[in-house]
Amino acid sequence: MTAAQQGRTGVAVIGLGGAVATTAVAGVEQMRLGSSTTAGLPFAHREDLVPYEALVFGGWDLDADDLAKAAHVHRVLEPAQIEAVAEQMERIRPWPAVADPAWCRNATGTNVVGIGPLRERVAHVRADLRRFRESEGLDRVVVVNLASTEAWPDLTSAVLADLDTFEKGLDADESVITPGMIYCYAAITEGCPYVNFTPSFTDVPALLELADREGVPVAGKDGKTGQTFIKTVLAPAFRSRALQVEGWYSTNILGNRDGMILDDPSSLASKLDTKGSVLDSILGYDVEDHIVRIDYYRPRGDAKEAWDNIDLVGFLGQRMQLKVDFLCRDSILAAPLVLELVRLIAEAHRRGEGGPQEQLGFFFKAPVTQVGKSPEHALHVQERILLDWLDRR
Amino acid sequence: MTAAQQGRTGVAVIGLGGAVATTAVAGVEQMRLGSSTTAGLPFAHREDLVPYEALVFGGWDLDADDLAKAAHVHRVLEPAQIEAVAEQMERIRPWPAVADPAWCRNATGTNVVGIGPLRERVAHVRADLRRFRESEGLDRVVVVNLASTEAWPDLTSAVLADLDTFEKGLDADESVITPGMIYCYAAITEGCPYVNFTPSFTDVPALLELADREGVPVAGKDGKTGQTFIKTVLAPAFRSRALQVEGWYSTNILGNRDGMILDDPSSLASKLDTKGSVLDSILGYDVEDHIVRIDYYRPRGDAKEAWDNIDLVGFLGQRMQLKVDFLCRDSILAAPLVLELVRLIAEAHRRGEGGPQEQLGFFFKAPVTQVGKSPEHALHVQERILLDWLDRR
Amino acid sequence: MTAAQQGRTGVAVIGLGGAVATTAVAGVEQMRLGSSTTAGLPFAHREDLVPYEALVFGGWDLDADDLAKAAHVHRVLEPAQIEAVAEQMERIRPWPAVADPAWCRNATGTNVVGIGPLRERVAHVRADLRRFRESEGLDRVVVVNLASTEAWPDLTSAVLADLDTFEKGLDADESVITPGMIYCYAAITEGCPYVNFTPSFTDVPALLELADREGVPVAGKDGKTGQTFIKTVLAPAFRSRALQVEGWYSTNILGNRDGMILDDPSSLASKLDTKGSVLDSILGYDVEDHIVRIDYYRPRGDAKEAWDNIDLVGFLGQRMQLKVDFLCRDSILAAPLVLELVRLIAEAHRRGEGGPQEQLGFFFKAPVTQVGKSPEHALHVQERILLDWLDRR
Amino acid sequence: MTAAQQGRTGVAVIGLGGAVATTAVAGVEQMRLGSSTTAGLPFAHREDLVPYEALVFGGWDLDADDLAKAAHVHRVLEPAQIEAVAEQMERIRPWPAVADPAWCRNATGTNVVGIGPLRERVAHVRADLRRFRESEGLDRVVVVNLASTEAWPDLTSAVLADLDTFEKGLDADESVITPGMIYCYAAITEGCPYVNFTPSFTDVPALLELADREGVPVAGKDGKTGQTFIKTVLAPAFRSRALQVEGWYSTNILGNRDGMILDDPSSLASKLDTKGSVLDSILGYDVEDHIVRIDYYRPRGDAKEAWDNIDLVGFLGQRMQLKVDFLCRDSILAAPLVLELVRLIAEAHRRGEGGPQEQLGFFFKAPVTQVGKSPEHALHVQERILLDWLDRR
Repeated sequence: MTAAQQGRTGVAVIGLGGAVATTAVAGVEQMRLGSSTTAGLPFAHREDLVPYEALVFGGWDLDADDLAKAAHVHRVLEPAQIEAVAEQMERIRPWPAVADPAWCRNATGTNVVGIGPLRERVAHVRADLRRFRESEGLDRVVVVNLASTEAWPDLTSAVLADLDTFEKGLDADESVITPGMIYCYAAITEGCPYVNFTPSFTDVPALLELADREGVPVAGKDGKTGQTFIKTVLAPAFRSRALQVEGWYSTNILGNRDGMILDDPSSLASKLDTKGSVLDSILGYDVEDHIVRIDYYRPRGDAKEAWDNIDLVGFLGQRMQLKVDFLCRDSILAAPLVLELVRLIAEAHRRGEGGPQEQLGFFFKAPVTQVGKSPEHALHVQERILLDWLDRR
Repeated sequence: MTAAQQGRTGVAVIGLGGAVATTAVAGVEQMRLGSSTTAGLPFAHREDLVPYEALVFGGWDLDADDLAKAAHVHRVLEPAQIEAVAEQMERIRPWPAVADPAWCRNATGTNVVGIGPLRERVAHVRADLRRFRESEGLDRVVVVNLASTEAWPDLTSAVLADLDTFEKGLDADESVITPGMIYCYAAITEGCPYVNFTPSFTDVPALLELADREGVPVAGKDGKTGQTFIKTVLAPAFRSRALQVEGWYSTNILGNRDGMILDDPSSLASKLDTKGSVLDSILGYDVEDHIVRIDYYRPRGDAKEAWDNIDLVGFLGQRMQLKVDFLCRDSILAAPLVLELVRLIAEAHRRGEGGPQEQLGFFFKAPVTQVGKSPEHALHVQERILLDWLDRR
Repeated sequence: MTAAQQGRTGVAVIGLGGAVATTAVAGVEQMRLGSSTTAGLPFAHREDLVPYEALVFGGWDLDADDLAKAAHVHRVLEPAQIEAVAEQMERIRPWPAVADPAWCRNATGTNVVGIGPLRERVAHVRADLRRFRESEGLDRVVVVNLASTEAWPDLTSAVLADLDTFEKGLDADESVITPGMIYCYAAITEGCPYVNFTPSFTDVPALLELADREGVPVAGKDGKTGQTFIKTVLAPAFRSRALQVEGWYSTNILGNRDGMILDDPSSLASKLDTKGSVLDSILGYDVEDHIVRIDYYRPRGDAKEAWDNIDLVGFLGQRMQLKVDFLCRDSILAAPLVLELVRLIAEAHRRGEGGPQEQLGFFFKAPVTQVGKSPEHALHVQERILLDWLDRR
Repeated sequence: MTAAQQGRTGVAVIGLGGAVATTAVAGVEQMRLGSSTTAGLPFAHREDLVPYEALVFGGWDLDADDLAKAAHVHRVLEPAQIEAVAEQMERIRPWPAVADPAWCRNATGTNVVGIGPLRERVAHVRADLRRFRESEGLDRVVVVNLASTEAWPDLTSAVLADLDTFEKGLDADESVITPGMIYCYAAITEGCPYVNFTPSFTDVPALLELADREGVPVAGKDGKTGQTFIKTVLAPAFRSRALQVEGWYSTNILGNRDGMILDDPSSLASKLDTKGSVLDSILGYDVEDHIVRIDYYRPRGDAKEAWDNIDLVGFLGQRMQLKVDFLCRDSILAAPLVLELVRLIAEAHRRGEGGPQEQLGFFFKAPVTQVGKSPEHALHVQERILLDWLDRR
């Protein structure tokens, strides 16, 4: 039996009311109504994967608004596009979220579970997942993290270093354990594949160990949609032609909620970190003048602009410059990738492949690997690895 | 014995006094003086190929100036860079060229062989090649076409369709046979590998047949250095993410002699043609609004600017734009690729591989293939094919 | 009595169903409904001019569709914006146009007056104007040319040189007389101020003479909205700082009907001409490498993109570059300027000022002046002249 | 007697070894040798001003290198350009500077006057000025501040509020008094006109009072050369056409010593402040999303890049974007303006006009005005004011 034949697959989204999630849900609802647009969906032709129409959405959000209302607020889609599927989207209402302002200052809301002991929070999330699976009659539930970026935890903490200390940390309510880790822990424990599309750090050794032990596939982190997508396309080409990158200046302006969250320096640090090492890894040498800026700039809303300037040195030391201006749409790029990730990690689950899914690095700025391994960043290499994996079935 | 051990390799350049050739020669002379700069040279670390220092330059040009003088005119390199190797470059003076203003209107000069019967011109070029090989004690001579772009011949002419009709056409002084074809015919007949870095059409069926029969490797055409290089990097990435290309507008401004030649509409047509089909071939569908402009704009000299605007359609029909501005250096990008092509086609010759060298498509806008075959255009695929070929040795 | 108190002013538009006209009409209808948006309207605060709400629209078009339908086709405004004033716009239907495919090849339609003798066509237009004035009870009618660009007539023709020969030309059905001239002649004869917002050549000496004689104000030509607007802002600044313009490369991509018309080389020539001399006139010297390109590129629709590259020479011969990318909206920029022109030429009419209105040069790429006079092009100087004129009242 | 006839004018530069000063000196020396290049010099044709060749340079720097050596380090000019005037430039060696690392952390050097009491430092600078005037036989000495940007003093300090408290502050060695103020105080006291081309805050009320009292002209601050120059050209044009600026994002990348200094947050604050208010002042409303970034990025050296993105709202709320990329040369733009400022402030001195020279606002990001007055920022208005002043003579 192929995944495609397995019937209904649940998608439990952390941050269900956000711009990416509502866009993804609207897209699936349009497909259910017969739309066949496949732009942005690189695996649309793969009939061996779970069909988009078999995806059933649920999840958590700090805001209790139904998804139609939320989609109107985000203004990613045109009013007419939301209206066309409003009836379906109004039926979906986020469950109360496990959140903690200590980890994400600018994200606040009223649809929250009171901050109790960590073990209680885990139990709450697990109960949500079980209820979702049963009430909807789902064969499988994939958990996808699309929540606002959290501040980085102290990664040197022994609590995060292995599963044993982590579980003791849960018992002791250790403050280094973030809401994102709670969701991730609960998902794996419930046997649900887990995809982290955000820069938040949930791929700590303890949780990778748990995923390995439980045979549950996990993937992340930080969706590669805009500037870093282009960077991992251009950098391999410069290396191919031995054009030396002397400097690379990247700036991003964006005005959606994601941008507002990144206006908080502690969240920004998480984001910048996942963007940072990509370049040197591809080129094979350190680019000293690699600068990345992200600025919250409201006039654009969800329409992000990424401007890059690259200084190149060519034959006999002669200099050249290349500039790229990407007027993109954050959620429009992200939403279809989230759908593909759900389909692909469901396939990994079906194949019984647990732990970090390195073949899904194609989708991420900071691909999660087995502990100690360096990720591949060049887009075309990532694509080949993924296609080879798909064909290995 | 590897190519690297075979000693001196001649490089007979058509257009030896041009910006690309003089830059390449200056680079090799600087290496001979001990400079170890490898920027722009993607195969610098390949010690199994002929060393750069083993290359010996000669060739034809419409202008009889020595190469130091020519390099100063082109202003590609700084005066001090030319001075450092002036003694060596002054010793190289172009041989009289076989040229015909009917095929390249704006290129004129005084260092020419009188326009006689085609067979005489062939004999003249062959004599040059033999003399070069003997006087310099060369193990092998590679012919590289870096001349100004010729107008396109009538490709439907029966004269060009096979070797037999072509040879009769030489006897009958058929006007469809261009100077570029004369050089190519002479090179193959003399057993010299032939590289066409220009858009001029010399890869006619008749000459590919000759190359096959004689077991002489040939490669071309139109070096992929600037805008098309970037296009064949970005287009595969758009396809990877299923971003639909709705339109692609490309404009080039350049002020060197190459640009002046392209101001002549008949030469421009050749150039535009080699740029045209690349995009549709990579994407797998036709981009109706694919526009390519080339304008002669003197303020830039050799510093070409290529500006691209790309209109993309993503998930749920939402539109995005990407703009690329490449402030590049035409000859700085081209010269090192010419050196690598010489080393690689010499290797093919050593291996006894004749006819079109498809693995060298990595370097060209319109890769020459076996008759009837479609070329690969995606840069990363071309690179893999080339690296596989190299490792197959 | 100020113009503001004079009551209803008619606006008879040549090309009423076009993107600019329908946008202007929609804007006025929204103001009538109480909207107070003044973006794009530089004289919104001038209460001594005719109020926008007092403007009554009529006019000619090759297409008989009502304006609501036409506005939906142009897609300049969002569907909801058109819906809000649909009732009002549906009531406006273009009158049959006096057109001639000989002068504008790509513009075709069915709502046309049969091509009869020139005098009959003049009579037809005059009758339309009289009927419009009477049926709507208008105090004044301004004729505005927003039609597609016509090919250029032979400007050396004696027919166009003075009013006497022109009138004989009308009698003799001289082919050098364009549809645009017919409208202009009819307007002036009817005492209607005439504004030419297109590049079509109607400001021939004969018609300027007529305007002078009749005391009817005329203004034009070719609205300065996008690239040339920016050019006449930047060029004076370069002169202010003595930065020498070595080259200026301008390219435009646009996908609306205007762009399609310009795909016809004879129309394009008209357009390029009005863009050409602006730069040298402002700088006071000739820029040899001033290149202007306009390309029809459908993905953008009405959203025009103008990309400029400017090469500057500064102190001690050092070079700099400035690039401008203007992602503008052709009709959004033009429509409010048309409304202001109507209000301002009505004011000139009220003041009794006939002939070319040089103070309106602020709005045009090729300001019409008294015969033999050179126009001012620098935007800030034009603005000062206009403001001084306004305050002279 | 016009200024032009008055003979030798001294220019005592604070920061004489810097990129701007050495470029200005090289330019004057080339003019003395007969070069007549006037690019970048807007008042080159003004024969009533002091001739460039009459300027005699001296001044202070933290680095004792002669100017030829300093110019080679800055790499603003090509080696050949420096060589041509090396003999003259080698003769100029900076005097020891009055500096204080407390006010400019990244600027260090060995050619300094020991940090003694403030009164001693004042006396030292005054003695330098007297010696310069006498030894060179100068009719007039203008002091120009081109030093690295200082941190901002506490502007609310009573010490700076009027001349009386300031002088007491000098006696009491008040720490709020910066090196820049010392130079300014000494200059005015010596009757030397003072130009502040840097963002450092020396235009405190106390010193403006002194300039008024002594009848010595002063001007500043922060030369308007790159991004702000363009901003004050474009913003008035947007206002002219009632295009509403919804957001303006500006980023600068530069790699010269100026950029390095601005990497220190306290210096950066000074710079950003002078860039900040310009926009709102011209437009007449507040642009909430006005973001200015400056980043130190070494690959460019002195070749600064300023990238602007502007979001505009036009008719009926429709949005547009304009992007500007200025690949400029910091010192090449600044040096000729410094020369013009010297000539113009000398003219003001000749005319007996003391205190803040508001007509010189044309040159500055934050024009110094009489206390309590708001400066004009629109470039074309500033130019008119300056030309009117010049012609008033």
